[in-house]
Formats: sequence, C-alpha cells, structure tokens
Amino acid sequence: MNTSAHDLEAATAAAAAFRLTRRATALERAGWLTAIADRLEEHADELVALAHSETRLGADRLAGELRRTTGQLRFFASVILDGAYLEAIVDHARSDLPVPTPDLRRMLVPIGPVAVFSASNFPFAFSVAGGDTASALAAGNPVVVKGHSAHAELSRRTAALVADALTAAGAPSGTFGHVTGRKTGLDLVGDPAIAAVGFTGSLEGGRALMAVAQARPVPIPFYGELSAVNPVVITARAAEKRADELASGLAASFQLGGGQFCTKPGVVFAPSGARVAERVASLLGSGMPLLSEPIERALLSGLDRLSALPGMRVLRGVSEDPNAVAPAVLTTTADRVLADPQGHLVECFGPVTLVVEYDDLHQVVACVRVIGGSLTATVHSQSEDDIRSLVDELTLIAGRVLFDGWPTGVAVNWAQHHGGPWPSTTSAHTSVGATATRRFLRPIAWQATPDGLLPPELQESNPLGIPRRVDGVQYPAVHKEQP
Amino acid sequence: MNTSAHDLEAATAAAAAFRLTRRATALERAGWLTAIADRLEEHADELVALAHSETRLGADRLAGELRRTTGQLRFFASVILDGAYLEAIVDHARSDLPVPTPDLRRMLVPIGPVAVFSASNFPFAFSVAGGDTASALAAGNPVVVKGHSAHAELSRRTAALVADALTAAGAPSGTFGHVTGRKTGLDLVGDPAIAAVGFTGSLEGGRALMAVAQARPVPIPFYGELSAVNPVVITARAAEKRADELASGLAASFQLGGGQFCTKPGVVFAPSGARVAERVASLLGSGMPLLSEPIERALLSGLDRLSALPGMRVLRGVSEDPNAVAPAVLTTTADRVLADPQGHLVECFGPVTLVVEYDDLHQVVACVRVIGGSLTATVHSQSEDDIRSLVDELTLIAGRVLFDGWPTGVAVNWAQHHGGPWPSTTSAHTSVGATATRRFLRPIAWQATPDGLLPPELQESNPLGIPRRVDGVQYPAVHKEQP
Repeated sequence: MNTSAHDLEAATAAAAAFRLTRRATALERAGWLTAIADRLEEHADELVALAHSETRLGADRLAGELRRTTGQLRFFASVILDGAYLEAIVDHARSDLPVPTPDLRRMLVPIGPVAVFSASNFPFAFSVAGGDTASALAAGNPVVVKGHSAHAELSRRTAALVADALTAAGAPSGTFGHVTGRKTGLDLVGDPAIAAVGFTGSLEGGRALMAVAQARPVPIPFYGELSAVNPVVITARAAEKRADELASGLAASFQLGGGQFCTKPGVVFAPSGARVAERVASLLGSGMPLLSEPIERALLSGLDRLSALPGMRVLRGVSEDPNAVAPAVLTTTADRVLADPQGHLVECFGPVTLVVEYDDLHQVVACVRVIGGSLTATVHSQSEDDIRSLVDELTLIAGRVLFDGWPTGVAVNWAQHHGGPWPSTTSAHTSVGATATRRFLRPIAWQATPDGLLPPELQESNPLGIPRRVDGVQYPAVHKEQP
Repeated sequence: MNTSAHDLEAATAAAAAFRLTRRATALERAGWLTAIADRLEEHADELVALAHSETRLGADRLAGELRRTTGQLRFFASVILDGAYLEAIVDHARSDLPVPTPDLRRMLVPIGPVAVFSASNFPFAFSVAGGDTASALAAGNPVVVKGHSAHAELSRRTAALVADALTAAGAPSGTFGHVTGRKTGLDLVGDPAIAAVGFTGSLEGGRALMAVAQARPVPIPFYGELSAVNPVVITARAAEKRADELASGLAASFQLGGGQFCTKPGVVFAPSGARVAERVASLLGSGMPLLSEPIERALLSGLDRLSALPGMRVLRGVSEDPNAVAPAVLTTTADRVLADPQGHLVECFGPVTLVVEYDDLHQVVACVRVIGGSLTATVHSQSEDDIRSLVDELTLIAGRVLFDGWPTGVAVNWAQHHGGPWPSTTSAHTSVGATATRRFLRPIAWQATPDGLLPPELQESNPLGIPRRVDGVQYPAVHKEQP
C-alpha cells in the first residue's frame, strides 16, 4: 500500500477525474461536500473512539473537532453556492476607446488535482476530511490525501467513508484518494498529475516538500502552514486590573490540546513585577502524552535549549503520567531576549510558554520586529492605553491580530484568515475560512467568446445569478431557481 | 551606480518608506499614480524619442505604448478608489452558535517593498512605470525597479520623472527607486527589505531569479511572466471561408513589434491543403533589428534548430536592413509534431511562426496537450463547427482563450487575465488588468478589535463606503464624500 506505484495510481486517477470534476456544477460539488459531512456524522461515535485511541486528545475535544470538521464541509458548500468566490468579471467590447477593446470575461476555475498533507494535531479538522480537502473539493479539484502516521487507522477509516460518500453522491471515480508513507508523500508532490499542495506541519518538513514542489520541471504552488510563535502583549494597566483572569486565560490557551496548536501563545510580553509567570505556574496541569515521538523529542530539546539560556527561569508543572511531558512556564527579561533574539523567539510545540518581562513597550516593539511572521498576535490592554504603534507593528508580522482574547480558537467563517508572513505560511493565503478555496483556483479570461461556449457563470444572461462585476460595476447575486 | 551598496540603499529606503506608504489612503495613492501619468505625458515627446533611439520599435508604436502606460496608471487609481480590491469582510460576533465566534474583520494590506524587473520588449508598459510598478504602488508598496539594459537611458529618464512626480505629489521619500546591472538585480531579490518580485522576461532568467527568491532565509513570492507558445487553431471551415483574411491577420500579429510580444502566436494549427503558410509567406515584411543581442542570438539558434527538424519547410522573407532578422514562416505536419513534440512546440521569440498542418482536430488536441502552459490560446472557427471539446482542452493550458481574433492585443481593464499555467507565469495571477494588484497584497484578520484601532475600511460605520461582505452578505459600495 505504501509503494510509489500505488501513489501514482491515485494521482493518475485524480488527473482523470479532474476532466469531470472541473465541469461539475457548484450544486453538484456542494452535494459532495454535504454527503461527506453526513457520512462522517453518521459514524461520529466510531470515528471519535478511533481518534481517541490513536491521539489521546480526549473524547470531548475530538467530538467537538469532528463537529467543526463537518460544519466546515457544509460551510464550503454554502461558499461555492454563493458564487462570489469565482470573482466573475465581464467587460463588454468597447469601440468608443482610442484603442477598441474586445469582449472579455474572467473567472476562476479549478487548478487541478491537489495533494493534501494531514497534520497530526487536528486528526479531523486538518486531516483527511479537513479544511484543505474541503476547500480543494469545493473548488472543483480531486484530492489525494497523504495520511498522517500519528493517526493511521483513523485516516484510513475516514478516507474510506469519504470515498464511499463521494461515490454515493455521484462524484467521478478518482475524485478522492488516500496514500500513506513518507516516500510516497515525496513522490506525490513530484507527480506530474498533481497541480498544487496543501500542507500543515513542521517548518523542516514543509520547507523540504516545498523545495520538491519548486524543483519539478513544472513547479506547482505549495501552500504550507509551518510555524508560529504567536506573541501576546499584556499592557501594564491590563496586568494591574486583570492579572488573575489573564493568567488563567493564558494557562488554558497554551496548555490546550497539550500545547499542540499552531496558534498556541508561545511568547507573552508581560510587565515586570506583575508576576504573570508565577501566576500561570500555579495553574499548570499535569500534561498529556504528546501526539508523536518526534514532537516529544523536539519539545524536550527545545526546552533544554531555552532552559540553558542565561537568566532563564523555568517553572515546571508535575506530570502524573510517566508518558506525558509536564507543562512549563519559562520566564526571562526583554533585555535578555534582545541580547539573543534568535535564541529566545522560537516555536516550541507543546505545553510551554515563555513570559518575557518588559519595562516599557519600546522593548516589546523591538522584540516583535525580530519574531518575523506569525499566524497571530494578541494584545491585552485597557481602554486608556495608547497601543496604536504597538498594533501597527503587530500587523506587520501577523495574519490575525486579536484583542483581549486568546489565539487558540480559529472560527471557520467568511472573515477568517489563518496564515501570515513566513514562516507561519508559505503564501498570502489562508487555510481556514471561506477564502481558503482561492489557493486551488486560477483565473481564465475568455475573449470574444460565443455565448454558448462560455461557462454558464459568464454567459450574458447570467443564468446562475452569481454576483459579477460588469463594465466596472459590481452587481450582487440574483436569486434564481437553480437549474 | 551599479554597485550592490547602491542597491541595498534603494531597498533600505523602500523599507523605511513602507512604514508610511502602507498607511497612505487610497485617495493619496491614486494621487501618486495620477501625478506619474501626468508627468510622463508632459514629457511624452522626449520619452518617445529616447525610446525610439534605443529600441527602434517605431515612434507610432512607442507613442501608443506610452499612452497605454499612462492610461494604466490612471486605471489602477480608479481600481483602488473602487475599494473592492481590498476584499473586505466583516463577521460580527455570534453567541448563538454551539461554539460562539468573535468579531472578525478581514481585508488585504500591502505586502511590502516590491522589486520590479523591466522587460525589453515594452520599454514603457512593462518597464519602469509599467504594470508591475503601477499595481505595486496602487496597493501601497514602495517599488525598486531594476531597469533593463536594452533601454538604459529611457529607464533612467523615466525613473527620474517618476521619482519627481511622486515627491511633488507628497509620496514618502524612498517610495520609488531605480537600480541597474545584473548583479544588482540578484542582490535586490536577495535583499531582506524586499517582500515580493515582479518580473517579465525569459524562462531561464526568470527561473534563476525565482530560485534566488525561494532560497532566501525568508522566501518571497516571485511573480514572473516567462514564456508562451500561444497556439492558434484554424478550423477547416474557417480556412475555407476566410483564408486570406486569416493569413493577413496572422501575418500582422506574429510580426508585430518584430515578433517580440509574449502573446505572439507561435504555433498555428491549420488544415492540410489550405496553404495557410504559403499565404502568410507572401505577406512577410522586411523585419526590424531585434531589441537586444541575446534575443537575436536566441532567435537565430531557435530558427536553426526548428529548420533542421525532419520535414520542416522554411519560408523566409527578405530583410533589407542588414541588422534585421528576416521574418519566417515554418511549416510541418501534425504527425511530425507528435513524433517530436518537445522539439517543435517551443517559444521562438521574434518574427517567426510555425504552421502545423493537421488532418483532423484530434491531432490538434493531442498537440495542445503537449504544449503545456501558455498565456493565450486562439480559435478561428465558423458557427457550424463543434469546437466544444477543443475549447475545453485549451482552457486547461491557457490563461486567456480567444475567438476569431489575435492574441497580441492585451486590453487593460477589469476582466483581463495575462497569465497562465507554467511556464507562461509562475503563479495564478495576472500582470495586466485590475486584479494585478492582488500579487502585492496579503490578508489580515482583526479579531475583537476596538473600532478606533481598525483601519477605516473595516470600521463598523464603513466611513469610506467601500464594498464589504457583512455576515455573509455582499454589500455594494456606498457613495460617500471622501473624508
């Protein structure tokens, strides 16, 4: 099953399916997504139990994550039925211009078969039937998932249910495939049938696969979500007013799911003397076994490296489970960080956070400039605080800036952006929310095209009633009976 | 002037300017673009004369190209004032959901200083003040142009006028820079201050610079437009009805500007026996000196290679100018092409086209599948022809599909798409038309943000009246007095 021959088979089947999926209507594709969601929900108990046995993330969290995953599939169905994601534009011919222009009509079309690399930390939402798969299918592309070994049985079972649901819903054979194995994953990215890659995982793994995608005779886009420090800034006033509330919020956020969220707050800037680290230390849980051996190794070596930095204090929790790494709060000063920023400001995946004590916000700004790209940046402040220039700095490095909350929740809706400057993601696109479909689409312009040869979305009468920009003016969707 | 120290200076100045340009309003940026257009128009005679002396493209063509360039600058001003390019989305907080969601507001923001590599073939429209510069400035980014040596004096003069116009219009110092030299160009792409690259040029040059952009410690997007064969298909009925008209259209299109257009029709599929090649051969002009030594060398070696293919017939024009390469029509059969597709289906930049005689459209489809990505694909047919499956194939390889016209005109408007699958461009973006701005923007989501800290475009009252999607519903622009 892990041979490269099998891989090529799934990719070849996807390429054949693409000739049909690219012509499937939005209504048909919405039906596929809904069928997958229904099927997964019918098997929720079985899937959650399987996930629990392989990941120990806890049945409640897993049941919630499965609901989020099926909700996400249904959401993408609504996104494509809305039609705006096609970015349809019509410019009629102009003979009144100094240089006359022809009739031009542009919209987005599916890019081709997509390879999706599952993450270990969200066995449903960023795995076989997760956001990458949902957005790629929604856009009209076949998908070949490279399942994650950390939840291999769950992946296989989910893949079987997805494939069954697609078949029952009338999707072409080859629309969905599932492969396993590291070598197979590399072959998949190199396979000429694959047109784009979605990836959630480590910086090293992502950068290696990206290099393969770029070195192909025909390079393809690699959409990776790789690594983030997710800075949090607590102002002096906020610490003074809400120290306990902030400590418990932070403790809950960085220990959630064993600290194995890409949005985990990894560095927290707190005012000197507010004793934020000590307060958080009193709220450390007992930890949980990490998702995989490599994650545990990376965490322990990261902890060792950080602990050895001059002036670093380490406040550890106590783990009752011998297989679990005890959560930890590390703390140091802004001056120490600025003396060795690269040494301090690194992602440490797991139940660990670094509290950096500062004396004034200029030190924080100096540190933020060194962090580089991050998925999120958070500010806790009081209304009297002037945080304008701080926020301005944060928008330079983050994809999502949030206030008086914690970054670990990522809503699936129209406005979400889950991405950010390198190394948080490899492109200016999101892997969560409506606009995630944009990764798997490309534009085409049709010039002076007979109406009958145009896709329905661009025909003069707009038979599907989608929103379009016509001669420079944006028109909303027209509610029509679906044909 | 060509030292790397000078380069870093321009990039560093751009980075400093970015802290201001990113906060400039659309109205301010539209003013910058308009000021550049005005200034170039004031100096039109001087610029056209300079361009003529360096490129020999002809004063009429150059004057037209300058008008297109200033029109393009003004067009991008209207695009940003429209506001839709920001893709603004507001999702209010929801407490009625199983998992409540926070207030989330997303829009696009400028990406950072952009390096622009000029092309030799459009000394105005794809050069110092061309589409890449206009769209990057429009989006709010400083620009550093690497001028092309094939029109060095024009580049310097244009750059001086652009810089003056920007200063007079109040743009921050460092908003625009101009550097020269091959080594400097490489340094520019590697400079940490640069956030994205726009490039128009050769496949080899583009792939080399793309590798530099990707190998940086912080990789950056490389938007290159590299190479295209631009297939044209003439059906048997069209050849029968309109042979002379098609021959003269083709002859004009592939010889335009010395055949040095990225949209030049390079391969034309014509029915056997229609004598399209012979008709075109009778319309060959006397050619013109090519834009540069490397282009001439590449053309001559390409011609030699194609001419030596088995069964290839070469119909040459006569050049009166000893410095000009005589235009040529090459012709062979579809069977010969299918026996060695890679040998035949290559871009040959210059006044050359290859007419491939076919017996039925299945041969054409087989050839098209080998061509790979192209900027354009063209069909000349009669209404009785069933070309549906042919068009379907063409949409798989091209960024623009056109009917009963010639690909060498590229209108600058909302619906234009000038891009296509590799190797025509390196991304699913256009370098011409309104959506070219998208290359130089990235999304940010603001979560639970106090209204006063939001950019005006996302504030609750929508003070600028831009179009936004609010709670899933798209609202059009509201006409308000500009503040």
